[in-house]
Amino acid sequence: MPGLSIDNVVFGFHDNRLKVLLVQNKSNRKWILPGGYIFREEELEYAALRILGERTGLNEIYLQQFHVFGSTKRTKEKYLKETMKMMGVDLPSDSWLLQRFVTIGFYALVEFEKVKPEPDEFSSQITWWELDNLPDLMFDHEEIIDTAIKDIRLKINHQPIGYNLLPKEFTLKNLQSIYETILNRKLDRANFNRKVLSYGILDKKEKQFSGGAHKAPYLYSFNKKAYFEALQNGLEKSF
Amino acid sequence: MPGLSIDNVVFGFHDNRLKVLLVQNKSNRKWILPGGYIFREEELEYAALRILGERTGLNEIYLQQFHVFGSTKRTKEKYLKETMKMMGVDLPSDSWLLQRFVTIGFYALVEFEKVKPEPDEFSSQITWWELDNLPDLMFDHEEIIDTAIKDIRLKINHQPIGYNLLPKEFTLKNLQSIYETILNRKLDRANFNRKVLSYGILDKKEKQFSGGAHKAPYLYSFNKKAYFEALQNGLEKSF
Repeated sequence: MPGLSIDNVVFGFHDNRLKVLLVQNKSNRKWILPGGYIFREEELEYAALRILGERTGLNEIYLQQFHVFGSTKRTKEKYLKETMKMMGVDLPSDSWLLQRFVTIGFYALVEFEKVKPEPDEFSSQITWWELDNLPDLMFDHEEIIDTAIKDIRLKINHQPIGYNLLPKEFTLKNLQSIYETILNRKLDRANFNRKVLSYGILDKKEKQFSGGAHKAPYLYSFNKKAYFEALQNGLEKSF
Repeated sequence: MPGLSIDNVVFGFHDNRLKVLLVQNKSNRKWILPGGYIFREEELEYAALRILGERTGLNEIYLQQFHVFGSTKRTKEKYLKETMKMMGVDLPSDSWLLQRFVTIGFYALVEFEKVKPEPDEFSSQITWWELDNLPDLMFDHEEIIDTAIKDIRLKINHQPIGYNLLPKEFTLKNLQSIYETILNRKLDRANFNRKVLSYGILDKKEKQFSGGAHKAPYLYSFNKKAYFEALQNGLEKSF
């Protein structure tokens, strides 16, 4: 599809830190989001997954469309022609690759210790970057990341979160630290517990008997059906 | 921009009814959303407003991007070529107008008694349709409307609504009926009042003295600054 691309914002969560996955262009050493083009006969959601797989080696990630970035200025950078040239592609100046691109942003949250990103042939490196310490980014990719995190922070109040980020069984404290990391602030424990339990998306596990462990916290798992229903319809209604 | 279009879903509210604005193609008599194409050097938001203006005569409407529809099957209908032909445009079969189109959905809510939609040269009619009684629609336009209303119903719990729909001063009952119409169910009055007042987006007006009118309800107006801040950042935080 000429003029249309996809950019994936993959947020990595681990040990109370939130990072974002970036690739470094082999040619000009600039950092960018793992993005790419859409085939003529390819569904958008499939294209997003394929591009992510090709560019990072990450598969089976739940990607969500969040916004279209279409500023006429966004890809009008000398980088674009430079990059193509350095990649050995000398394009005629009317090539579709040098024209305006509108990009569809998708995002995902993953547990970054569980995945092993691999750079593709166009990238010299692939790295998790701290959100408050990003490198210089090409095009409007900083704005795309910024919009993605704002969207997640807004949605965390009405959509469930954590499915890709936690082991099958986890404590409420594990879940709380995901919320705290994303929101970038501390939460009151009792209030948090009351709130998330009220959503009906968690199944409480029976405690295993283990000597002296009577103070061990309860373990929970997501009720998959309720979780994905809430992802569709929202967690709670104000009205 | 080849392969990329915009479709506008304009919801009209009046007297506890919610309708959607559709235009009827002159050529094949099919109903569609007022949509169109994007110029090479045109910002998406501007294109949405221009298209809405050209096709419906409606101006100064607050349009919000909500989703991209990109199914490879969405525009593969005989309608497309037929329509073009009937519009007097006989296109070569490799024309960009006959290829796959990805469309960006924008929506708006307006008070439909306040606007006078006018059909353009391609349309034989422009009409407000009841949501539960839509005509046969071209392409995936029924899905687009469906996605738009679901999005509004989800967002009504965490974003303010009503700005385009109410006079400068209104009662809480006026506001409640907007919520009830959009959600398509009755709400408890005391609970509704408590909730909307807690958001801090309403300014209470002093009651005018008028004999015997001591039971007249208070009038409110939106606090514009707080309203648009809440539109950006959400109404209330669960955590």
